[in-house]
Amino acid sequence: MTGLFSALPKEVSVYEVSPRDGLQNESVTVSTEGKVELVNALVDAGLQRIEVASFVSPKWVPQLADGEQLLHLLPRKAGVVFSALCPNMQGLERAKSARIEEIGVFLSASETHNKRNINKTIAETLALFRELVPAALANNIRVRGYVSTVWGCPYEGDVDPRRAIDVAAELFKFGCYEVSLGDTIGAGTPLQTRSILMLFKDAFGSFDRLAMHMHDTRGTALANCLVGLDLGVRTFDAAVGGMGGCPYAPGAAGNLATEDLIYMLDKMGVSTGIDLDKLWKAGKVASSVVGRALPGKVHQAGPGFVRKG
Amino acid sequence: MTGLFSALPKEVSVYEVSPRDGLQNESVTVSTEGKVELVNALVDAGLQRIEVASFVSPKWVPQLADGEQLLHLLPRKAGVVFSALCPNMQGLERAKSARIEEIGVFLSASETHNKRNINKTIAETLALFRELVPAALANNIRVRGYVSTVWGCPYEGDVDPRRAIDVAAELFKFGCYEVSLGDTIGAGTPLQTRSILMLFKDAFGSFDRLAMHMHDTRGTALANCLVGLDLGVRTFDAAVGGMGGCPYAPGAAGNLATEDLIYMLDKMGVSTGIDLDKLWKAGKVASSVVGRALPGKVHQAGPGFVRKG
Repeated sequence: MTGLFSALPKEVSVYEVSPRDGLQNESVTVSTEGKVELVNALVDAGLQRIEVASFVSPKWVPQLADGEQLLHLLPRKAGVVFSALCPNMQGLERAKSARIEEIGVFLSASETHNKRNINKTIAETLALFRELVPAALANNIRVRGYVSTVWGCPYEGDVDPRRAIDVAAELFKFGCYEVSLGDTIGAGTPLQTRSILMLFKDAFGSFDRLAMHMHDTRGTALANCLVGLDLGVRTFDAAVGGMGGCPYAPGAAGNLATEDLIYMLDKMGVSTGIDLDKLWKAGKVASSVVGRALPGKVHQAGPGFVRKG
Repeated sequence: MTGLFSALPKEVSVYEVSPRDGLQNESVTVSTEGKVELVNALVDAGLQRIEVASFVSPKWVPQLADGEQLLHLLPRKAGVVFSALCPNMQGLERAKSARIEEIGVFLSASETHNKRNINKTIAETLALFRELVPAALANNIRVRGYVSTVWGCPYEGDVDPRRAIDVAAELFKFGCYEVSLGDTIGAGTPLQTRSILMLFKDAFGSFDRLAMHMHDTRGTALANCLVGLDLGVRTFDAAVGGMGGCPYAPGAAGNLATEDLIYMLDKMGVSTGIDLDKLWKAGKVASSVVGRALPGKVHQAGPGFVRKG
């Protein structure tokens, strides 16, 4: 039949970002041991791609200063890939010494956010990645690209999707194996998502190498992912517990909560290889290591809904 | 074109339930003056149907014991309809003396939930409504029906949608002008929603007299509403701030937050007659009168997303 859910995928890939995107935006600094405990719980739940660290300057992100030490302590497991954000050549040196399999490079679709976030113009950032991505590949480190503010910029408002497409095209040209499109401020809505994704599909032929990275700031993350799923997107970023909310707004949502995504996908018969019960426990570890209640809905309500007695 | 959003409606109706479904599930009892302040703020934001009270026994719901007094104090405005839940003939007497235009009658699609919630079998409840609904209509009080646990029962698990359809059919037969289908425990997911709604459409010919009443316990409420919207549902229940979460789970979500729904609909070009900025302020009144942070996402993040400076 035609229409909604006419071609639901049998399986999708979930890319876990809580140890990086989550912890980076928490006000506390979690101990390296706490991070190991969290990542181990995520691996145990079945997650196979996990962004665990950032090799940006510890001056800017002190919460993640222990990247090399963390990667040294983390047990490696066949089939599980750890990644770290990497802004420049110094970062790549750290990635190499940490023996990491994958790095992430990131920039924004909007000039003002890029400037404020990484203190460079988009053109300057791309010039840097033109060297960095091939250098990583030459060291057998694969590279994932991130484009921020695709659904809106906190400084410029609406963003022309063609700017995001141009940036993504450059990242592919440099050698990124996948590009993750970010709704950095969680402003996105379903019709907009459909429109953005259709433009991306036109530009790149399919969604095979594109991911959605939605924040749940306005409660629309799952609805937007549903639109993506319906259109053919097969990779979704999420953070356990919905970690990463602004520490100055208690309870405010950050990343799409992995548990909420998996709950929905499980009930729709879409396989992810992730065990929701174990994932829910990993969320409890996350809440424990950051020392606060996390905003994820399934995280709070529990993985099942039938009461005993 | 075919597919998702091929026939988005120009406008939908939002039915506000925070003063009843919300406050009933808050641990504190809000003063009558606080309720007046909340309802006035909701009316000011443009809401035209608001469930403000419940005429169940004050013994069971002490938070809402002041229904008549509240309705006496509330300024009436042309085009705005207040309603109250009404379980039986005693409730109808209270509704009449409160000069209310609409009552709501409610039962569950699952036997165990019905028994635990209203201490009657479904058959006994229907027998009662067979008298109650015509008696209300004879007094120029229109009647809205609610069917709970359509998406799942906390005691029985999955619920056969045909049981919900049978119950809804009875409510229409008695004279209800509209029936609201409730995901009482927020268990619903999009594919299930599509399947349930298609069965309802087959049974009743259209969605003209059906509403969706989703709880956001697992973060799926908005995604489920999106499916309903795509299929032709035109009435959605919601509670400002996402009020109504379990008081024993801080931050846990209750009803779908009206602000989140309106944010999504606004950005999709679907008109509701509701002013999001004013609604957001009404949510702040709600948070203030219940004395706790509410879980709604837009409630927490604010109605806009572009920063100054």
